[in-house]
Amino acid sequence: MLTLQDVQEAKERLTPIIHDFPLVKSTTFSQMTGGEIYLKQENQQKTGSFKVRGASNKIMKMAENGPVGTVIASSAGNHAQGVAFAAAKTGAHAIIVMPKTAPIAKASATRGYGAEVVLHGSCYDEAYAKAVELQKEYNATFIHPFNDYDVMAGQGTLAIEMLRDQPDLDMLLIQAGGGGLIAGVATAAKAINPKVKVIGVQAEGAPAIYESFHQPEIHASKNVSTIADGIAVKTPGDLTMELINRYVDQMVVVGDDDIASTIMLLLERSKQVVEPSGAITLAAALAGKVDVKGKKVGVLLSGGNIDVSFIDKVVQKGLVSRGRQLELKTIMPDIPGSLEQMCRILSTHNANILQVSHLRFQPDLPINQTILDVTCEVGGFEQGEEIRKALEAYGYEILK
Amino acid sequence: MLTLQDVQEAKERLTPIIHDFPLVKSTTFSQMTGGEIYLKQENQQKTGSFKVRGASNKIMKMAENGPVGTVIASSAGNHAQGVAFAAAKTGAHAIIVMPKTAPIAKASATRGYGAEVVLHGSCYDEAYAKAVELQKEYNATFIHPFNDYDVMAGQGTLAIEMLRDQPDLDMLLIQAGGGGLIAGVATAAKAINPKVKVIGVQAEGAPAIYESFHQPEIHASKNVSTIADGIAVKTPGDLTMELINRYVDQMVVVGDDDIASTIMLLLERSKQVVEPSGAITLAAALAGKVDVKGKKVGVLLSGGNIDVSFIDKVVQKGLVSRGRQLELKTIMPDIPGSLEQMCRILSTHNANILQVSHLRFQPDLPINQTILDVTCEVGGFEQGEEIRKALEAYGYEILK
Repeated sequence: MLTLQDVQEAKERLTPIIHDFPLVKSTTFSQMTGGEIYLKQENQQKTGSFKVRGASNKIMKMAENGPVGTVIASSAGNHAQGVAFAAAKTGAHAIIVMPKTAPIAKASATRGYGAEVVLHGSCYDEAYAKAVELQKEYNATFIHPFNDYDVMAGQGTLAIEMLRDQPDLDMLLIQAGGGGLIAGVATAAKAINPKVKVIGVQAEGAPAIYESFHQPEIHASKNVSTIADGIAVKTPGDLTMELINRYVDQMVVVGDDDIASTIMLLLERSKQVVEPSGAITLAAALAGKVDVKGKKVGVLLSGGNIDVSFIDKVVQKGLVSRGRQLELKTIMPDIPGSLEQMCRILSTHNANILQVSHLRFQPDLPINQTILDVTCEVGGFEQGEEIRKALEAYGYEILK
Repeated sequence: MLTLQDVQEAKERLTPIIHDFPLVKSTTFSQMTGGEIYLKQENQQKTGSFKVRGASNKIMKMAENGPVGTVIASSAGNHAQGVAFAAAKTGAHAIIVMPKTAPIAKASATRGYGAEVVLHGSCYDEAYAKAVELQKEYNATFIHPFNDYDVMAGQGTLAIEMLRDQPDLDMLLIQAGGGGLIAGVATAAKAINPKVKVIGVQAEGAPAIYESFHQPEIHASKNVSTIADGIAVKTPGDLTMELINRYVDQMVVVGDDDIASTIMLLLERSKQVVEPSGAITLAAALAGKVDVKGKKVGVLLSGGNIDVSFIDKVVQKGLVSRGRQLELKTIMPDIPGSLEQMCRILSTHNANILQVSHLRFQPDLPINQTILDVTCEVGGFEQGEEIRKALEAYGYEILK
């Protein structure tokens, strides 16, 4: 079982080695949701996510009973870095098995903490099988990412910190994948203040806990598909699920579009990089999946380990959806000077041209004409509309 | 004049209304520079920058002597939001004059704090002239962005906070544009601990203080050109320059490429959005412009107000410079099936195709051949090289 005392002991263990940043009130997100929003910025935690809490509590507790020897985990994500970090702190040997498809950056970050990284197989399941094999060979301790009370106790320390900073929070929004985080947080939070509501948030494309919540049996998902890879878990733990059914008040799901636009808002307004599984809680509040109006709400931003190419995609999508990138297609004479005139109109209207192509392979296009496809950067929809009108006033036909 | 007591009084005024986040030790940047790096994350400050400190101290001090009436400022940047925020806190009326070319987002953020925004002229100088005109009309108080002791006292509160958290810092790295920030910080820091070195950092393309440092006269820059728009100031203040000459130990300059790659690193490693003028201090340490080896260094990240389209450009550039975007040009037969084979090789090597073009307008290209220009997303230089070799093994000639 898991008790508040286990979580309090975990908090004592973790205090010397990890960050304990205060809750930060967000005026912006409070205004946008009508609630009083406090952010726990665990994206800035050591290793970039909360996972370091559970792994460290587990391994440090083992170390209290003698040398730890070798610990092993299979993960291509935040758990890998958490275990590697914790092993380094206790002088243990860590082996992390990752699928060969794992991003190079993740493998080298994990090696950077001193762990041995074994690349094996093409998916998580194959890496897991290899880890089980290596565990026997090395007589190592397997560190489960969620279905372990010591791991849950570590994650639960977040409840202690959040309710210490703001004891009268009405609600905690916590992400759920395998369930270790929310089980730990809910157990501790309810023991500290039984009146606080704990709301779990899952991805629409990976809803195993949402579907298993208060059901007689655990529903595993056959397939998972979401940008929130950190919580894309097919089968929640039995130990975590039992605590979730006991202590969590409500489960909701959020779609990828809402997650992506929340990541963009966090970049712009909070100056924070948050990964999809980290932003999903705030996305639930912003998308109205949870009613936070008039409530004092603690929102966990659980991690920030996002690949830069993903940031690029989120920003690109955000720019388009805000009318900051304008694509125009127009027919124009295929003669010298045509593009120049077009460019002059665009520059007069302060549009920055990003890309130009000429489309000449259209079946019914007269031979002396070409379609120009131009993408430019503008201030927003309003400026885009002005440019459209200006071009039409010059006689350009804007194609749909 | 400016004394530590002025700065201490400013600190008392500001405490109820702004964030006071602790210095955060960065393991990553300590390892990269060989120094012990502590970040002051002022990018997460109210309004997204330190400018709120100076503006608030000025306006709150005025309010202690009776109603403030109307305050006015000309700025398209962080000072605008700082003045607007401070005016709202004291019930004053704020008019902010911005050039018409100011980003729409900046104008609406400033209006969001309750200020009246007047768009006038096509450059800062014209907006400034309009502000002077309106100042007379409204009998308003003009809030200078830097050449004002009360503003400097507000900015100087950063020294109190940084040296409170880590009293034995050897060095502070502080950005300089007009000089209000560094003048305030240096004055307070030297009074608290005369042994702490204060190093000023300017942009190579806007080096007025660097060039005026310890000179008999102030050298104004005729033109300024840098991505660090927050510190792109042609003429530093006379009051600020006097304090800088007295209290600052060294001035250095940093180029745009170093600033951009530092912004990228801050996104990736610290999960922080920092604007160019905010990242320039860390860039100075990373680029070796300041010798921080073995030193305990406080680095000010002064602001985070960066347009999303700029984040996009920084990330794009970073992806290219890290070999994450691979562009290949190759000659291939202009027949059905050619592109398919190419795509198969790329997909076998786990490369994600971003863009494909056919270049047929090359003078010496045989009629039955085309040049394929393909850009794809890969893991890094190593994977890019593997793909190049695989294509060559299939007989493709890779063009330079």
